Amino acid sequence: MIRGMHPERGHYSAENCSIQAALDIVGEKWTLLVVREAFFGVRRFADFQRLLGCARNILSARLKTLVDAGILSLSPYREPGSRARYEYRLTEKGRDLYPIVVSLMQWGDRWGERPDGAPLQLTHRDCGQAVEVQLRCAADHGPLSVRDVQARAGAGAKAA
Amino acid sequence: MIRGMHPERGHYSAENCSIQAALDIVGEKWTLLVVREAFFGVRRFADFQRLLGCARNILSARLKTLVDAGILSLSPYREPGSRARYEYRLTEKGRDLYPIVVSLMQWGDRWGERPDGAPLQLTHRDCGQAVEVQLRCAADHGPLSVRDVQARAGAGAKAA
Repeated sequence: MIRGMHPERGHYSAENCSIQAALDIVGEKWTLLVVREAFFGVRRFADFQRLLGCARNILSARLKTLVDAGILSLSPYREPGSRARYEYRLTEKGRDLYPIVVSLMQWGDRWGERPDGAPLQLTHRDCGQAVEVQLRCAADHGPLSVRDVQARAGAGAKAA
Repeated sequence: MIRGMHPERGHYSAENCSIQAALDIVGEKWTLLVVREAFFGVRRFADFQRLLGCARNILSARLKTLVDAGILSLSPYREPGSRARYEYRLTEKGRDLYPIVVSLMQWGDRWGERPDGAPLQLTHRDCGQAVEVQLRCAADHGPLSVRDVQARAGAGAKAA
């Protein structure tokens, strides 16, 4: 894919690109940081705010974006003596963002200045070994690098 | 990781988070779209501009961000009768963004409205089978889901 320009690139539109579609939803720093906290099990507005340290209005807007996109769902709860409030929980669509979050983390770990080592360790619950994101093919060859991968127009490609 | 809030979450700072470090560099839509085109083999300013359709000043700023971050390198070329210009090429640090780009694409393919199928197909050059991003552990168990993964503070964790 990086051996000279893709011969077909100019023939197709980037208008319906899935990368762009994903970035339209999660391509804003605070949005993915909210998702990061949700993967840590954070569910309540006050906890998101305390951990992220972002302004209430920004947090409200990002939570709304994520609920509207079907990434977080609202689930009511009531503490004794308080009015009903809502918790935010990852949906299946939200949990499916995990490889994106882990691949960002992996790159940040590898290329950031980390003299003390990575701040977070992910391990396989069953065997305790380190977890990473890899490229694999359906015949289970891998891990693959970009040089092993061929890109071509799919069924949903649109002419430029 | 999503079975109730991570017990240690509040004890550690998010200040040196690798996800945030990655987003500080690539967490802007146009930046990753420039990288997407670079993976298609695009190298020249005019080609980036034509394919992305973004304003010259935005493109210049994003290319500068990517060069300053060591994701793209500058390489001079000269066409007959023209002054010397520069091509932008992915460095190793840049090529290492590939799993992020593919995981975004995979999520967009899966959750976007794609009645006609995915616009782009990635296959393993050697065997022709479809390529995807998976979570694997060092003992090669997988593909893993978020529920299989345990997160704990790493060596570089900072107290909150």
